[in-house]
Amino acid sequence: MNILVTLNSNYLRPLKVMLKSLFINNPGENFSIYLMHSSIKDVEINKLDKFIKSNGSNLKIVSIDEKTFEEAPILLHYTREMYYRLLAFKFIPPEMDRILYLDPDILVINPIKELYNLDIKNYLYAAAYHDAIPITGINRIRFKTYDIKNYYNTGVLLMNLENQRNAINEKDIFKFVKDNYSKLIMPDQDIMNSLYSKDIRALDEKIYNYDARKYLYYKYNNNKMVDMDYIIRNTVILHFCGKKKPWLKKYSGVFYSLYKHYEHLALDCNINN
Amino acid sequence: MNILVTLNSNYLRPLKVMLKSLFINNPGENFSIYLMHSSIKDVEINKLDKFIKSNGSNLKIVSIDEKTFEEAPILLHYTREMYYRLLAFKFIPPEMDRILYLDPDILVINPIKELYNLDIKNYLYAAAYHDAIPITGINRIRFKTYDIKNYYNTGVLLMNLENQRNAINEKDIFKFVKDNYSKLIMPDQDIMNSLYSKDIRALDEKIYNYDARKYLYYKYNNNKMVDMDYIIRNTVILHFCGKKKPWLKKYSGVFYSLYKHYEHLALDCNINN
Repeated sequence: MNILVTLNSNYLRPLKVMLKSLFINNPGENFSIYLMHSSIKDVEINKLDKFIKSNGSNLKIVSIDEKTFEEAPILLHYTREMYYRLLAFKFIPPEMDRILYLDPDILVINPIKELYNLDIKNYLYAAAYHDAIPITGINRIRFKTYDIKNYYNTGVLLMNLENQRNAINEKDIFKFVKDNYSKLIMPDQDIMNSLYSKDIRALDEKIYNYDARKYLYYKYNNNKMVDMDYIIRNTVILHFCGKKKPWLKKYSGVFYSLYKHYEHLALDCNINN
Repeated sequence: MNILVTLNSNYLRPLKVMLKSLFINNPGENFSIYLMHSSIKDVEINKLDKFIKSNGSNLKIVSIDEKTFEEAPILLHYTREMYYRLLAFKFIPPEMDRILYLDPDILVINPIKELYNLDIKNYLYAAAYHDAIPITGINRIRFKTYDIKNYYNTGVLLMNLENQRNAINEKDIFKFVKDNYSKLIMPDQDIMNSLYSKDIRALDEKIYNYDARKYLYYKYNNNKMVDMDYIIRNTVILHFCGKKKPWLKKYSGVFYSLYKHYEHLALDCNINN
């Protein structure tokens, strides 16, 4: 299975935790981890490579140099890395037909195969939208010229690379950014939702993009069925959305002990950390 | 390593969770699990035996028949099983010199070897006392004729079987129960503390008998050092003391997700559950 991650060196620790949880809960699977980046040092890459190899998978580097996105407009507080996941298809080997993008602030707590093999032949992406806040409504107003049905989260994206090569044009993306400069809040997410919302296959957020902040919301909006027992047995991807991250001091949340458990396995128990 | 458990069939599920956590976090170790019981059915024993074998360890049955404790006084709400852990030394092969008793409402989250090999040659037990409530004071009043320095918790007991064979007399225990009939609240714990408190080597509760209800207590009484990070890295035994148990619905607590994780591994992912 092909996994895509795009990050800078600040996220290498959480990346290892995410990967460790992926490896442990998908025994016998071999993963190719595509790391798309522009600034991570060789010594860090080598360590990550060893870590991944010692877990039976392998690392592929997609190095992006400064000139690649020269034409791309940049936004205040954002680097050109905001385009990486949307334009990844251009930098990934042309024979590949699909890849699963995962944010580093994730735990994969059950097998991922069913998601990976999902039928997306008529879509550009599969993704989940978060239903709790009426975010779709807000965003419909923000980008009123665009047809947004649901506001999808870009933390988990199954990508149909073949369709993307045919349908996604970086010029459209750059134009959208220029035209909506002042409205963009979460740029990559705003771009994907505004331009490609119709071409996204919706995933069940409870299974594939569970927002770890919203335990009580999920529980009480699902007739108490989505409790801890359900999550641990059924949820595949736990996503630690928002500013409070479980690797920071002062975090508290119902999945804190679970996160720390995987962190311990990834960073303390692994020889190559 | 020799592990002792004493329980009835209501606790077989938590027992498997406890054992799974022990096995996972002590790779390469072979455990002999001594199960002391009087009422568990053969079909359940066989399942447990398969579960333990599939994890590379083995089960030893110490079956107690009804007549064994005929002379023992019984207390309201308690069966004669309350004597099992205190008198286990009488039923365990005489060549064995030590065994570690563990309650089933426990997770073993780090290697246990250092505890198991602790020097207890001048003691009957090693155990931890819980410091949070001034329970020692209360118990000093309850049993004022006895010399109780600390009120130890009997959920984790490293036993020096040789010394116990020489020092512990069941008649003393039965006499104590008769004499203090109305005062006994947690009978086995009260007995051990009243009669053998001086002969117990104190363990650090933060490491070997962490009371899962008291996350904030431990944190703020240890200069914030004993946080989730510390616990996951250092604590060996998490003890889910009290009436609220993590395998029951409606439980909530900072270690809920971690407990459910181990439960899932023990009961869903294991072929022999």
